[in-house]
Amino acid sequence: MEIVNRVSRMAAIANKNLVTDVKTGLVPTSGAIHTGDLSLIRAARRMADLAVVSIFVNRLEFPGDREYEQYPRDITADVDLLRTENVDYVFIPQDDEMYPASFSTHVEVRKAGEAAGLPSALFSGMATGALKLLHLTKPSYVFYGEQDAVQAAILRRMIRDLNISAEVVVAPAGREPSGLSCSGRNRLLGEPQKAAAVVFHRCLRAAEDAIGGGETHAKKILAEMDRIFGEQPLVRLEYAVIIDPELLEPVSKIQGGVIVGVGGRIGDTFLTDAVSIDVGRLSPAGGRQ
Amino acid sequence: MEIVNRVSRMAAIANKNLVTDVKTGLVPTSGAIHTGDLSLIRAARRMADLAVVSIFVNRLEFPGDREYEQYPRDITADVDLLRTENVDYVFIPQDDEMYPASFSTHVEVRKAGEAAGLPSALFSGMATGALKLLHLTKPSYVFYGEQDAVQAAILRRMIRDLNISAEVVVAPAGREPSGLSCSGRNRLLGEPQKAAAVVFHRCLRAAEDAIGGGETHAKKILAEMDRIFGEQPLVRLEYAVIIDPELLEPVSKIQGGVIVGVGGRIGDTFLTDAVSIDVGRLSPAGGRQ
Repeated sequence: MEIVNRVSRMAAIANKNLVTDVKTGLVPTSGAIHTGDLSLIRAARRMADLAVVSIFVNRLEFPGDREYEQYPRDITADVDLLRTENVDYVFIPQDDEMYPASFSTHVEVRKAGEAAGLPSALFSGMATGALKLLHLTKPSYVFYGEQDAVQAAILRRMIRDLNISAEVVVAPAGREPSGLSCSGRNRLLGEPQKAAAVVFHRCLRAAEDAIGGGETHAKKILAEMDRIFGEQPLVRLEYAVIIDPELLEPVSKIQGGVIVGVGGRIGDTFLTDAVSIDVGRLSPAGGRQ
Repeated sequence: MEIVNRVSRMAAIANKNLVTDVKTGLVPTSGAIHTGDLSLIRAARRMADLAVVSIFVNRLEFPGDREYEQYPRDITADVDLLRTENVDYVFIPQDDEMYPASFSTHVEVRKAGEAAGLPSALFSGMATGALKLLHLTKPSYVFYGEQDAVQAAILRRMIRDLNISAEVVVAPAGREPSGLSCSGRNRLLGEPQKAAAVVFHRCLRAAEDAIGGGETHAKKILAEMDRIFGEQPLVRLEYAVIIDPELLEPVSKIQGGVIVGVGGRIGDTFLTDAVSIDVGRLSPAGGRQ
């Protein structure tokens, strides 16, 4: 396993792999590697010739310096864990090499995202950082957990719009026993906040149950999700959407596959969660078969 | 020479060339191929293993449908001309394949560009279209004429910021005898407008002469350029800048290389022009050695 810190070294490795037709699987992480990440890494090793795991806390995704600085980092433990997973390259770029003072370029997935009720500016930093990682590692596949299905749908739309040669693969989410999706950001929550954060998952389960029970009107499901969030004053909801996983556009009548996604803040901490629901695969009584 | 219309075919060719380590030179054009384009094509054939010329009128660069529809197109004559130049691939994508109804992604080069006084939104469509062409043709080199040096600097900034493996090469401008830079857009101008448009070049020559004469204060040169534009009421100036060619940032004291760029509208037609000036290569009496 090679630890790559320099951007130029990563680009050279990626170019060499392209020329020798070695297919790369990229698992982008913010560090604080969790069980969900490990299942993505295993998927990458199955589908691609080699696995690159990036550890990068993307400053552009934070509203301010304080939140960025406070984000939990534990590179040593992460690297130890990745060694046991036969990862080929761990890419740990430095912030000032990724975003030098002169950095000026931003990508936004506007039209479809806004139609779906997603605050596109909120995801611009995520998309910009992800686009850089795609160029630096040139993967055939890039892996996201199901809890990040909205982000994955935004990137799938970006990849299609910009004609990038990479496929987004969404694998099952890592979740804590409470249902809370695994994220480094969870470490920033106090106990009452962590208990409150379970509302994201509860709300997604309610949507899943409603769709499994035969409800096809997105509006009704979103209203019920809103009601559930209303009961949890610690969470400021920023979006709740039901979207087409390919087009990223809002779905009004549910049939086939949809992503139900939610995002909001508890204090300064921005949390998101999502489930992918394939109506054909749900039993009439709700829940997955 | 293969004419490629389908986006998927172009991507397949580019991927095959990457895997076989064949270096591509891309000359992006809007068609109505002129002598400036031909010198870029010759540079591409010298520097790269094969030359791809794209002919694509990028809808995102136009303020409205009418201006887009009116843009001169002459694919048959262009293709005939390119056959005589030993071009390997002519990529002529269809608008609805490049920008389907669901297209949602935009890239902007904001911070540095705005600091320099460039209206970044104006160039967002150009950058987005160019990024798509880079992904579709995967060139080692992409060629622009000196008259497009501002656009080239924006793309160089984008390429660096986003870690794209391509190098921007700027080659001498194609100019009409009056000094007007060659562009398909010139065909949209009536005779009085065409005469007025020479002000862009006159203004750049004035900057070149001032710098050659030892002037180092960008502010003074920009004031003189403003004055020259003020004498030509048919032109609405949108920007006049003196920027660092690598960083795209505004230059206050001129030393080493700079780009002097201007852009404005005559009627609905948006025209730009630029010169690259290397102070070390100018004689004290002005003009190039």
